Amino acid sequence: MTVSHSGNGRPSPSPTFGDRLSQAVAERESQIVLGIDPDPAKLWPAAIDRASEARARLALTFSDAEEAAGESPPSAGVVARLETAAAVLAHCRALIDAVAPAVIAVKPQLACFERLGAPGWLALEHVTTYAHEQGLLVLADGKRGDVPVTAAAYGQALVASTPSPFGTVAGLGADAFTANPLLGRDSLEPLVQTAREHQAGVFVLVRTSNTGAADILDARMHNGERLWEHLARLVDDLGQAGPAGLKDIGAVTGATEPEHLARLRELMPNTPFLLPGIGAQGGDVAAIAPAFAPGKAGGLVTASRSIANAHETGNRSPAEAARAEAERLREQAWSL
Amino acid sequence: MTVSHSGNGRPSPSPTFGDRLSQAVAERESQIVLGIDPDPAKLWPAAIDRASEARARLALTFSDAEEAAGESPPSAGVVARLETAAAVLAHCRALIDAVAPAVIAVKPQLACFERLGAPGWLALEHVTTYAHEQGLLVLADGKRGDVPVTAAAYGQALVASTPSPFGTVAGLGADAFTANPLLGRDSLEPLVQTAREHQAGVFVLVRTSNTGAADILDARMHNGERLWEHLARLVDDLGQAGPAGLKDIGAVTGATEPEHLARLRELMPNTPFLLPGIGAQGGDVAAIAPAFAPGKAGGLVTASRSIANAHETGNRSPAEAARAEAERLREQAWSL
Repeated sequence: MTVSHSGNGRPSPSPTFGDRLSQAVAERESQIVLGIDPDPAKLWPAAIDRASEARARLALTFSDAEEAAGESPPSAGVVARLETAAAVLAHCRALIDAVAPAVIAVKPQLACFERLGAPGWLALEHVTTYAHEQGLLVLADGKRGDVPVTAAAYGQALVASTPSPFGTVAGLGADAFTANPLLGRDSLEPLVQTAREHQAGVFVLVRTSNTGAADILDARMHNGERLWEHLARLVDDLGQAGPAGLKDIGAVTGATEPEHLARLRELMPNTPFLLPGIGAQGGDVAAIAPAFAPGKAGGLVTASRSIANAHETGNRSPAEAARAEAERLREQAWSL
Repeated sequence: MTVSHSGNGRPSPSPTFGDRLSQAVAERESQIVLGIDPDPAKLWPAAIDRASEARARLALTFSDAEEAAGESPPSAGVVARLETAAAVLAHCRALIDAVAPAVIAVKPQLACFERLGAPGWLALEHVTTYAHEQGLLVLADGKRGDVPVTAAAYGQALVASTPSPFGTVAGLGADAFTANPLLGRDSLEPLVQTAREHQAGVFVLVRTSNTGAADILDARMHNGERLWEHLARLVDDLGQAGPAGLKDIGAVTGATEPEHLARLRELMPNTPFLLPGIGAQGGDVAAIAPAFAPGKAGGLVTASRSIANAHETGNRSPAEAARAEAERLREQAWSL
């Protein structure tokens, strides 16, 4: 176990992710997580204008390399993805600047960065660093899940590092990540172990907010329970609580089906819930009160498009509209 | 639907992934897929020696950029991941060179590239291009699955492209990818649609080869079926067959549980099976005969560590040992 030293000279355990989360929620008086799902077709106009500045930050990198390799000028495709990744980075920084005071974490959607290739992954790394600089936690949303040897590699990628003959290769440095439990307990254990060793957390999919979740997650088992109840027991068992009482392994529990939340809380009394589906997906903050039974950090309310696209109604700037929507959600959840 | 023009001037449908796969298997007389799961601690020695050559190919890129940003010399961490990604690329190219004649596809494990950050993703792109140059299909193994809007982004990332104000951003360009069905049918449909539009395929997890798969995939449903049987029906329904008769949506069906294969084939008569678990995970080629009921392309036999690490027994070079092991598997599967 990793230990730090307290003032009295005795080693004390490092805080768990549950402890870190509890402290962050109390300090910032917010349970709101900003989902970052950048769509290149819906970037804030200012971000597009500032793409060249962001590109300098992202790097001469790829274009230099392609040019050095003999492609001069670089192909239109190379330029397109560099410029797009740079504009996405500028957009994400502006979004974080706008809403940081109202949120405790950002949740970058890995798919939205992966679709821009290596420059997109580089933008994701910059977004992670920038969010940390603003005092925010980073929840990497990739819903990874694989056989144990590969799960260990995902843990290295997201919250740990990889040994190599050339030195240690740092991973993304997220504070937590989402995981898919379909492959069973042994596929989750390397993720849990790696996260725990780094005071990080894992949010395991239990009941998602999409319509199709009914197909499989709601399927009745031979004992009459639904599959998501089975998954909830597994997640409850995997988590460990620190002094603050909240477990370090969380659950993704879609806010579009609030009638499930009381049962989920019964099965996972001390598990932090990540609640997507507020706003654009139709969820309602007031309906999620059961999530907060173990304390204010028991429920993290995620909103993405409803914040980033708030300016589409009314005539405020994107940043003003995003800030107001995030603050509205913050007040509403905090008052529950 | 995308169409091409046949000799008689009438438009004919583009080949489906099932057709492309059938043709590739017939032409190359192989059903073997090389799993590429590079572990920096187990790279072939020649790859480590050739890292600087590969780094020039990967690019001055990141190091140039970091230096241009004022970090001169680059930090040890930056160098470590550049060198590691370069060595991984050299290793993958050497592995492909060694076994290409015996295989029809490569299956890069995305986790192993993601753990090296943006340079790792760049190495993955180079591996994809290199495999295509050798006439091989590329099956991107990331087991992605998410709500529909995000699933669409994964489709763009892996087999399609993303529109942006700066032009079209090309994705990885894989020929197929693996997907996780936990979130239900609506989470798979954008993946299927995007893949189909690009003559690509999707291999959906149905019954994996790890021990823990019994926890959830083998769970009995209220109607007495196991969850994997439910998933098999879903996958069968999603696939469409072209003239060659094989469907374009496949199933990942672990070869470590061959007693399941006959039932899986019954539920998915014309679905291509991706069979991991041969070799290092303990599966046996001879036991998987039911996979080939719809023809030789009905079962793709995946092996990774058993090929890349074949030199650990005996005294052949890594390349010779890998080639021999891949050829042994090819002959064994082809003779079934």
